[in-house]
Amino acid sequence: MAGNSYGNYFRVTTFGESHGPAIGAVIDGVRPGLSFDVEFIQKELNRRRPGQSRVTTSRSEADQVEVLSGVFEGRTTGTPICLIIWNRDQQPKAYEKIKDIFRPGHAGYTYLVKYGVSDYRGGGRSSGRETAARVAAGAVAKRLLSSYGIEIYGYTKEVGGIQAQTIDRHAIEENPLRAPDPVAARAMEELVLRMKDEGDSVGGIVEVIVSNPPPGLGEPVFDKLEADLAKSLMSIGAIKGFEVGSGFEAARMRGSQNNDPMYLDEATHRIRTRTNNAGGISGGISNGEDIVVRIAVKPPSSIRKEQETVTVSGEAATISVEGRHDPCIVPRAVPVVEAVTASVIADHVLRCGIVSQVMEKLQ
Amino acid sequence: MAGNSYGNYFRVTTFGESHGPAIGAVIDGVRPGLSFDVEFIQKELNRRRPGQSRVTTSRSEADQVEVLSGVFEGRTTGTPICLIIWNRDQQPKAYEKIKDIFRPGHAGYTYLVKYGVSDYRGGGRSSGRETAARVAAGAVAKRLLSSYGIEIYGYTKEVGGIQAQTIDRHAIEENPLRAPDPVAARAMEELVLRMKDEGDSVGGIVEVIVSNPPPGLGEPVFDKLEADLAKSLMSIGAIKGFEVGSGFEAARMRGSQNNDPMYLDEATHRIRTRTNNAGGISGGISNGEDIVVRIAVKPPSSIRKEQETVTVSGEAATISVEGRHDPCIVPRAVPVVEAVTASVIADHVLRCGIVSQVMEKLQ
Amino acid sequence: MAGNSYGNYFRVTTFGESHGPAIGAVIDGVRPGLSFDVEFIQKELNRRRPGQSRVTTSRSEADQVEVLSGVFEGRTTGTPICLIIWNRDQQPKAYEKIKDIFRPGHAGYTYLVKYGVSDYRGGGRSSGRETAARVAAGAVAKRLLSSYGIEIYGYTKEVGGIQAQTIDRHAIEENPLRAPDPVAARAMEELVLRMKDEGDSVGGIVEVIVSNPPPGLGEPVFDKLEADLAKSLMSIGAIKGFEVGSGFEAARMRGSQNNDPMYLDEATHRIRTRTNNAGGISGGISNGEDIVVRIAVKPPSSIRKEQETVTVSGEAATISVEGRHDPCIVPRAVPVVEAVTASVIADHVLRCGIVSQVMEKLQ
Amino acid sequence: MAGNSYGNYFRVTTFGESHGPAIGAVIDGVRPGLSFDVEFIQKELNRRRPGQSRVTTSRSEADQVEVLSGVFEGRTTGTPICLIIWNRDQQPKAYEKIKDIFRPGHAGYTYLVKYGVSDYRGGGRSSGRETAARVAAGAVAKRLLSSYGIEIYGYTKEVGGIQAQTIDRHAIEENPLRAPDPVAARAMEELVLRMKDEGDSVGGIVEVIVSNPPPGLGEPVFDKLEADLAKSLMSIGAIKGFEVGSGFEAARMRGSQNNDPMYLDEATHRIRTRTNNAGGISGGISNGEDIVVRIAVKPPSSIRKEQETVTVSGEAATISVEGRHDPCIVPRAVPVVEAVTASVIADHVLRCGIVSQVMEKLQ
Repeated sequence: MAGNSYGNYFRVTTFGESHGPAIGAVIDGVRPGLSFDVEFIQKELNRRRPGQSRVTTSRSEADQVEVLSGVFEGRTTGTPICLIIWNRDQQPKAYEKIKDIFRPGHAGYTYLVKYGVSDYRGGGRSSGRETAARVAAGAVAKRLLSSYGIEIYGYTKEVGGIQAQTIDRHAIEENPLRAPDPVAARAMEELVLRMKDEGDSVGGIVEVIVSNPPPGLGEPVFDKLEADLAKSLMSIGAIKGFEVGSGFEAARMRGSQNNDPMYLDEATHRIRTRTNNAGGISGGISNGEDIVVRIAVKPPSSIRKEQETVTVSGEAATISVEGRHDPCIVPRAVPVVEAVTASVIADHVLRCGIVSQVMEKLQ
Repeated sequence: MAGNSYGNYFRVTTFGESHGPAIGAVIDGVRPGLSFDVEFIQKELNRRRPGQSRVTTSRSEADQVEVLSGVFEGRTTGTPICLIIWNRDQQPKAYEKIKDIFRPGHAGYTYLVKYGVSDYRGGGRSSGRETAARVAAGAVAKRLLSSYGIEIYGYTKEVGGIQAQTIDRHAIEENPLRAPDPVAARAMEELVLRMKDEGDSVGGIVEVIVSNPPPGLGEPVFDKLEADLAKSLMSIGAIKGFEVGSGFEAARMRGSQNNDPMYLDEATHRIRTRTNNAGGISGGISNGEDIVVRIAVKPPSSIRKEQETVTVSGEAATISVEGRHDPCIVPRAVPVVEAVTASVIADHVLRCGIVSQVMEKLQ
Repeated sequence: MAGNSYGNYFRVTTFGESHGPAIGAVIDGVRPGLSFDVEFIQKELNRRRPGQSRVTTSRSEADQVEVLSGVFEGRTTGTPICLIIWNRDQQPKAYEKIKDIFRPGHAGYTYLVKYGVSDYRGGGRSSGRETAARVAAGAVAKRLLSSYGIEIYGYTKEVGGIQAQTIDRHAIEENPLRAPDPVAARAMEELVLRMKDEGDSVGGIVEVIVSNPPPGLGEPVFDKLEADLAKSLMSIGAIKGFEVGSGFEAARMRGSQNNDPMYLDEATHRIRTRTNNAGGISGGISNGEDIVVRIAVKPPSSIRKEQETVTVSGEAATISVEGRHDPCIVPRAVPVVEAVTASVIADHVLRCGIVSQVMEKLQ
Repeated sequence: MAGNSYGNYFRVTTFGESHGPAIGAVIDGVRPGLSFDVEFIQKELNRRRPGQSRVTTSRSEADQVEVLSGVFEGRTTGTPICLIIWNRDQQPKAYEKIKDIFRPGHAGYTYLVKYGVSDYRGGGRSSGRETAARVAAGAVAKRLLSSYGIEIYGYTKEVGGIQAQTIDRHAIEENPLRAPDPVAARAMEELVLRMKDEGDSVGGIVEVIVSNPPPGLGEPVFDKLEADLAKSLMSIGAIKGFEVGSGFEAARMRGSQNNDPMYLDEATHRIRTRTNNAGGISGGISNGEDIVVRIAVKPPSSIRKEQETVTVSGEAATISVEGRHDPCIVPRAVPVVEAVTASVIADHVLRCGIVSQVMEKLQ
């Protein structure tokens, strides 16, 4: 295997299987002297962890983070930061009786074809648990970004066709769906609980905002800002689509509608746009408006409803996946999407502005 | 600047501005002995070139390709292949009168903010012309893939809300829209010509298919196959969204609908799925079904209709972009999307299977 | 900071400061199913650890390794292997009284200039302790290589001008100098102990052999095998020179002397060379002969002898570095040099021959 | 093949075979607005080209450089710079009669083993001609560095055991050996001409100086400045050894001799060292003293003297390589070594100080 690192300047390497001793992340590229707050990382992990509300799985993972390197007396030292999360509450037995049957929509089949091995205990590196390491790394990225005044936040835009109609940031963490619209949140919750009862699951859409970004992030050809965001966000399990600004809607628009009129904001003396169909990125480079992206989350594939499948040896079978699975992963995806977005933005911030003492003097 | 390379095993580096002497690509990673067909590359370039039909710009660029290295007596030598396309038909004067006004939806503003320079002659590296180099490289990737029996093709799925209702591969190159449905193609064409008349433009959706892929392409964590496809496709200018398989529709589906039932195909003794909501990728790894992705193309931003904007010095202005611009870029995007997809698939094919004489003997 | 990873296919990322909670390595790229022997890793670490003999520092670090991921029931799973070594025996107080004085030959000054911080507790990432993580990773590389019949071993070729005259592999681990010549070993030991008495230190040369390598490792242009070996070996602290085969001696030779005559070995039907001035590498690619490289190790810079220096604020000062420092680092460098060599060779073995189940079927 | 790129921030990709239409380089990472002087590149290429004096091969290659992209009106645009050099004077026939016999010391055998093909016309990518592309790229790096006041120059330190005793910079280009000592230059020339007469060849040592470097270049772990220099310099064909500062001599020194005493230079208020055994690099990071490295150049392997070898089919044979080969490559290696050194230093300068307009405002 390979491909366990991402980013070039804010570089994250993750490791660990869902049923081994620990998972973790090594973060390379953080400058020395940044205030480091392990409580904030823990708080972000708690937003992702299973068992946090009645719409998520009842598995309960404490996800306690431990810092192995890169921090001294509350500040980063500039060296790689290694964060680990010990694994607990492993119930591999729950998987034993289905270990020889492929679960539709699950990576078991492709993993076996590719590697010749399958970790029936819960997915190896394909497990959703891998995202805890991303959240830990993303928390560090968020801190780095907030030192530049850049903030990242996400919310559940849609679940099973029910859309948030209003965006009230303060409402987001007040409901288990992480929806910014309390009314829609209640309807979404009802739907998710019904799915749980029916042994089924449901998908949704997460929207994430990069607030107050500087203009100039991103490169004009292959490393466009939206390209790097797309790669990182599409690398989260269960994500089926990505869009920026007007997104797929742009396919149905006229140029005269989709172009964002430009004007000079007299108050700030900055050039701004009246609409934000660009989603804050033009020609691959941020223009200073909020960066707005959305991702489509599929319904979880592990469901109790009976489905047609085959055994490892190729015989026809049916499967009903028991166990404590999320009927809707969208609310728990929100902190993961934020974390991954933060890591990408941090990567580009560092990319266009590593100012060392040395070079400052030279120039 | 940086970020002018993509891929790790099938590695493409592009260079050249729209108004310099030439653009080109260097391709590293192609094995020796592959049959090399410069006519095929030319044919692909012709599918992308301006002036090919009445729905595209009337600018006419011959886009003649020249091979500088990596090929000897009709076969690759295993060394880097450098392909160049000389620039012709440069009319920088056409841009002169708007050189001090920002065009809404265009990269001029962000490029200037980032680099402190602006190439008013037509976009520097942000120009759509840069994609000609991608098409040339993608043609080599297609040849490499076809030596493994893998084929890539794309088509216009939708323009301005008009959808192809049928998928007839043979129809695609028979109409200027590259739509697989001749009836829809006529309606699309009508719409595009109307936009041209109105000095406006329109967007659409391209679908691309990787036919007969082997299972096992892609890595389970950050380098998922859909993640690499998303990055590369979102790095094409004017693309606002990406989805794989059921895509954004998955957000509205139940798990019992979106999961693809599995069965054993008796004829081929391969495990297959009855539906393909996964789009041929499960857990980041191809499962052997056709890979199906879609991208959203925005309406071109250079339109004659008057729009609100500002000058480089920040004064309010209006702009009407004259010149020979595409009212709809979708048909010309098709070969670009195919080329980029082919490069990504070639990268992953090489990634999971570089078999040298040396190692074959060892194992 | 950055640059805490090396290798592309056998990819090692290290983390940890000498005085933080732990140091460690994440290894990405090992195939599933490889027999994994934590005792072997521990044994290699013991060869590097301080306090192992009277010619090394008397600091005693247990360097106990712990496996956090990538291994299940004694075999690799194909996922990243995270190895950590907890830090113990930290005596930062020993450094306190010299914390404001630059030590000649030590990284304190450049580290401070670059990062604006200095970790007076013993060097941060510049500490020799960082090499323990390389040894742990290299032990995994050695195991991987031995599954292909490739073996790596090194020895002390020279200390302070005293050269090994014979190469007896069995003698190496029988003397504290790790010299392959028992007679020279005694003279070297005498010299090192004399240096210790005098409060001085001495350098030397390590030679490392890659035994039974396949021909074909390495790439012909920038990633020549000797280039990657040179980079990795020169990245070990205290190394001042690198050579392959006849090395610097080649500068004084005629072509007719330095060229290795070629012949067919009738027994093995392989083409071989009568001499090995090439050091097993020709045109950047291994030719199947033993790969032979040497590195020059400088005398440790932390010595008791008084030296001229300056304080952090620039005042003239003298310094005498007390504490438990190695008078000669060469014997402890041997396992580090082996480990780094093994990692590079493993990287190139994987580079030229990743054979997955998928591609084997295709080809 | 792969590995045709080097550097991460000043990134060079080269292409082209010795007997194809052209060779060239693409340089990514140069900032916009740098004054660009094609005459300077040409001058550097002329220093490397064959046929420049009586001690080099009599093959005459004009090596005319052409700029395809990245430059507009005498300044860089910030986009990739593509430089090509058309091939001329190809005499593949000269090689025809030895095409089935392996040349001792030449890459033909390993290239064939690795790729299954052999380019008998003169080495494919293994040809020394590949270094012309490095020289072109290095000339751009030199210009970039000189905009920061950093200068790179090299010279022949030793040929066949004859050492330069004095270092007079002005003497270097005044003799065909590029030796900094006119007396030694004459002795060296005599030796080289004798070798030519005898059908033999001779090696030597090149020393290169980075003059006036800023402190702070290089990273403390794997990407130490000397490590990156070693990799790049060892990737030049025919180089067998690399050393920095006291180099291999350090192996024979005491710590009290090798440590460089530190003092405050009252004139510049900078901390300096009285000696420079470190070669300007401490802990992987430049300390502000001149950077001093040396490389060992082997005697060219193509000699007229008869040698033992085998044919491609494994039969015993003798070979006498006719044709116009250099009896000593050292003088022509000087500009190559300078160019590669310049590229590495430029890479690290950019690495530690990319200051964009964006980030300057933020910080």
